[in-house]
Amino acid sequence: MANITKKVSWSSRADESGATAEGTPLLNGSEQPRPSRQLSGSGGIFQIGRLSTVDLEEEMTSEEESLRGRPKEIPHNEKLLSLKFESLDYDNIENQLFLEEERRMSYMGFRCLEISRWVVCGLIGFLTGLIACFIDIAVEQLAGYKYQVVKTNIEKFTEVGGLSISLILWAVLNSAIVMMGAIIVAFFEPIAAGSGIPQIKCYLNGVKIPRVVRLKTLVVKVCGVICSVVGGLAVGKEGPMIHSGAVVAAGVSQGRSTSLKRDFKIFEYFRRDTEKRDFVSAGAAAGVSAAFGAPVGGVLFSLEEGASFWNQMLTWRIFFASMISTFTLNFFLSIYNNNPGDLSNPGLINFGRFESGSVEYNLYEIPLFILMGAVGGLLGALFNKLNYWLTIFRIRYVHRPCLQVMEAMLVAAVTAAVSFTMIYFSNDCQPLGPEHKEEYPLQLFCADGEYNSMATAFFNTPERSVRSLFHTQPGTYNPWTLGLFTITYFFLACWTYGLAVSAGVFIPSLLIGAAWGRLFGILLASITPDGSIWADPGKYALIGAAAQLGGIVRMTLSLTVIMVEATGNVTYGLPIMLVLMTAKIVGDYFAEGLYDIHIKLQSVPFLHWERPPPLIG
Amino acid sequence: MANITKKVSWSSRADESGATAEGTPLLNGSEQPRPSRQLSGSGGIFQIGRLSTVDLEEEMTSEEESLRGRPKEIPHNEKLLSLKFESLDYDNIENQLFLEEERRMSYMGFRCLEISRWVVCGLIGFLTGLIACFIDIAVEQLAGYKYQVVKTNIEKFTEVGGLSISLILWAVLNSAIVMMGAIIVAFFEPIAAGSGIPQIKCYLNGVKIPRVVRLKTLVVKVCGVICSVVGGLAVGKEGPMIHSGAVVAAGVSQGRSTSLKRDFKIFEYFRRDTEKRDFVSAGAAAGVSAAFGAPVGGVLFSLEEGASFWNQMLTWRIFFASMISTFTLNFFLSIYNNNPGDLSNPGLINFGRFESGSVEYNLYEIPLFILMGAVGGLLGALFNKLNYWLTIFRIRYVHRPCLQVMEAMLVAAVTAAVSFTMIYFSNDCQPLGPEHKEEYPLQLFCADGEYNSMATAFFNTPERSVRSLFHTQPGTYNPWTLGLFTITYFFLACWTYGLAVSAGVFIPSLLIGAAWGRLFGILLASITPDGSIWADPGKYALIGAAAQLGGIVRMTLSLTVIMVEATGNVTYGLPIMLVLMTAKIVGDYFAEGLYDIHIKLQSVPFLHWERPPPLIG
Repeated sequence: MANITKKVSWSSRADESGATAEGTPLLNGSEQPRPSRQLSGSGGIFQIGRLSTVDLEEEMTSEEESLRGRPKEIPHNEKLLSLKFESLDYDNIENQLFLEEERRMSYMGFRCLEISRWVVCGLIGFLTGLIACFIDIAVEQLAGYKYQVVKTNIEKFTEVGGLSISLILWAVLNSAIVMMGAIIVAFFEPIAAGSGIPQIKCYLNGVKIPRVVRLKTLVVKVCGVICSVVGGLAVGKEGPMIHSGAVVAAGVSQGRSTSLKRDFKIFEYFRRDTEKRDFVSAGAAAGVSAAFGAPVGGVLFSLEEGASFWNQMLTWRIFFASMISTFTLNFFLSIYNNNPGDLSNPGLINFGRFESGSVEYNLYEIPLFILMGAVGGLLGALFNKLNYWLTIFRIRYVHRPCLQVMEAMLVAAVTAAVSFTMIYFSNDCQPLGPEHKEEYPLQLFCADGEYNSMATAFFNTPERSVRSLFHTQPGTYNPWTLGLFTITYFFLACWTYGLAVSAGVFIPSLLIGAAWGRLFGILLASITPDGSIWADPGKYALIGAAAQLGGIVRMTLSLTVIMVEATGNVTYGLPIMLVLMTAKIVGDYFAEGLYDIHIKLQSVPFLHWERPPPLIG
Repeated sequence: MANITKKVSWSSRADESGATAEGTPLLNGSEQPRPSRQLSGSGGIFQIGRLSTVDLEEEMTSEEESLRGRPKEIPHNEKLLSLKFESLDYDNIENQLFLEEERRMSYMGFRCLEISRWVVCGLIGFLTGLIACFIDIAVEQLAGYKYQVVKTNIEKFTEVGGLSISLILWAVLNSAIVMMGAIIVAFFEPIAAGSGIPQIKCYLNGVKIPRVVRLKTLVVKVCGVICSVVGGLAVGKEGPMIHSGAVVAAGVSQGRSTSLKRDFKIFEYFRRDTEKRDFVSAGAAAGVSAAFGAPVGGVLFSLEEGASFWNQMLTWRIFFASMISTFTLNFFLSIYNNNPGDLSNPGLINFGRFESGSVEYNLYEIPLFILMGAVGGLLGALFNKLNYWLTIFRIRYVHRPCLQVMEAMLVAAVTAAVSFTMIYFSNDCQPLGPEHKEEYPLQLFCADGEYNSMATAFFNTPERSVRSLFHTQPGTYNPWTLGLFTITYFFLACWTYGLAVSAGVFIPSLLIGAAWGRLFGILLASITPDGSIWADPGKYALIGAAAQLGGIVRMTLSLTVIMVEATGNVTYGLPIMLVLMTAKIVGDYFAEGLYDIHIKLQSVPFLHWERPPPLIG
């Protein structure tokens, strides 16, 4: 079976074992007659070989400590790098043992394998969908509860002027929730920090990051993301879904769990790096699919981010997993919403449908969109540069778990304080009409029958704010509110990414972009003569969101498809693609993508897809 | 740059040259210092090498004649096979000349190349979109004109009872139009017959079918498809778009035309098999995109059908070409429809939007859908088997161009006669209300204010009939009409595919499936207690169409995405995928896919993606 194969040549040990395996049949397997074990022994370095893993983990933790103390030496420390990270063995080495085992399988055996691959993919999709559903419901419930507490409190104390008590209560509440999330991440499983996308990208490209697909990581990730979203940080719950899907895939396909020390003795054929990687890419796709309701986008995400290995049957299985995942989420959410059978929630975030009738674009708007793409690229590069410096600072000075927890709490408190201050100073009151269906309207300092739109933007979950920026009619948001919100949220999101909490950067990026995009649309409508007819601010919010997200994460193809699927309108495909391309080109000129920066800062020996142009031979 | 590479080992000559190139630097290039020419010389067998092509074409025509006379000898005639088809050279052979040339290029040179690749892809998309637009407008105009003539005639002669005159006029008109189409195909460019998808599939997988990407083929294809659709055959204009896109891509990317004997001296770097193949896959994707308004489906079609070679940057360029193509079509059609800027016609066929509110499915319907998938697989296998025997008959007895033209005319006349008979005997009159927006209503034997629905189904372009089956409200079609129509159209479409006319099988398949699907929906609604609430016939028409198409062509992933994009509703993704998979599994049990059958019958040495399971080593 032919695969796309990237030559991985940075790990000397992998090279050695590869050379041995090609030349002569290996003898380092055990002498047991079970062929699958022999295969695991013969293929080079494997992920579950008990002894070597333990050795390596011990080495690793000491190395990690020493590396963190002196990050300047990293580039010279090639040998330590290869000790910290193993390479995964993604080339089938067709030595005698391998061929003999394959010959021993009957035609029916191959058929059964093929069927069990499909079953495993279905299971992966189902479980990933369930996890997404769980996260969504937990966040919804806890955020609703928090909103009630804070609202009651604010309403009580506004009367008597004791606003500072409300602020303190809010900040303390948020900090406490974030603290829980940070503690489990920092003390129990540091690999669960962040969105996990860089780690999955590395895994799919053949670098084994230790413990990245363990069950413990999954549990910490899921609890962590619930805490950080409920804690009001400028984060999203979509990125972690991708990591969660990958862990589910690794677990289900291997039929055993290292964290639980259980071996279910099933799917033993799949216990090799190649097969496991295939399932992990299916899991990542299922995660994207559940996060954005974008099954095709999920497949293309796996193709784009983990594309060094691919084949055709795999595409179909991955697509199957994605479909099952979004369907499961949709189905269970419909039951949760007491509306079973209404399959209208395909993802965690739902941009809401852009009807082609109401929001159209004209040919002359395309240069404007491209301009917005360039702005998104610039802002994205700025974001990435700032985050790069911040991360270096963190590696140098904030490397103790307790310091990390304290930083996370500080960010939570500052986020609450900044929000509160801005709500206090911006008196952007909007009438609370029947068509305004904000779920958490806050009256605060407004007259009766009005609500504070800045408070709405800060208090809602970021997903709701994005949807509101896309779809509320012109005039809902004051330009000053939007401008201030953009700037504040930009710096908050930048500060937040890289904290020791489990959280994603997709939604904050979309939110920043939607805010300045809507602002741009409002400005256009006011300065052009008939702008109020064609310059719908919701449309520009969508384009701005795409531009900002593209400028930060630099994915083009999969992001286009994800956005198209999430908006449910193919008409926007071309402008979104142009915007994402512009953002990528402009952004690449100034800084790398956020995920690549973090891969580099974790000193992972990651080989990029494209070689630098003049390097041949 | 890593590619998926399928080992192509059936052409002994390709093997020889490959071996030479790997071992020692080649000397068989000319001694000119121009590296690109030297490269063309060194890479093995190339498509434009003047002398060898002429030799081969002469050989080929004589071989073709002799083969057609005695098809039983084909399997033993391995040597003749490799003379008829060349292999394309899709492995970059990194010999000294190649490496020297690459080294000689500056960094800027590589950048410029990359940019010109994007420009070429944009051009491919634009031109493909224009061609689709031209075909659409030409068919629309000519079909409208034909409808006027026939309608006037029928109305005149119904009064005096001379119906046979109308029939004869109709049949003669259709036959004459089809004759034109068949003459240009049979006498000028036989390779333009059929949908061209099998040929493109072969090309993308490394088999060079002579003259498949020539300009002359394109012209014949475009004119031929217009004639066959206007001539009332049971064909679609979507398949040929894929071939057209591929020809455009090959022409534009090479900067010269063999048919016109012109060399524009541009893009000379792209004159190698690898580069040309990349562009051809972009062209095929652009064709799908223009045909169905499905840019992502186009990319996945190229991936699924031509997937032996792929890389990541290529995906993006192909996606770009697809986007430009659907956008161009949409834009020019909006101008043609006097509604510029209304980008609501993304493809040649537009299924119409399925709103999620109006048409939903329930969980308990999924087994029904899977059952329909199985029926689609069975009917598809029957279709393919019948067409297989028919094609063998044709290879044996209908191999002279004049016979082929006569057969095409016969089919056109029979199609007209059968349609007319069925219209005559089925008195399925429907009220012509304001909500019935049939564009070509025929009163015929109905009372005033009514129209004949069988006549509508036969007289419309198949695209319109499909849309009507999907979207008209329950009760529009009589079950008997649908049943009769299904059976008749099934055999007509089966007879038509493989004629010496340029035509596709997508739309007839969709139409057959939509007809029996709607019938199934009507039956469900009548036999189940509350069936009339949930069993919307339009929904079942969609599922039936997917099942039938899947059963005939056996694509799963790309077809799912194409259907989802063409319906504009991601909710149907899961059922459509399940249906297509069931259809493929059931169908594969009985017969191969239609394209694979035709590839085999053309004796093309095509290697499939999957090896048979027990073959290893």
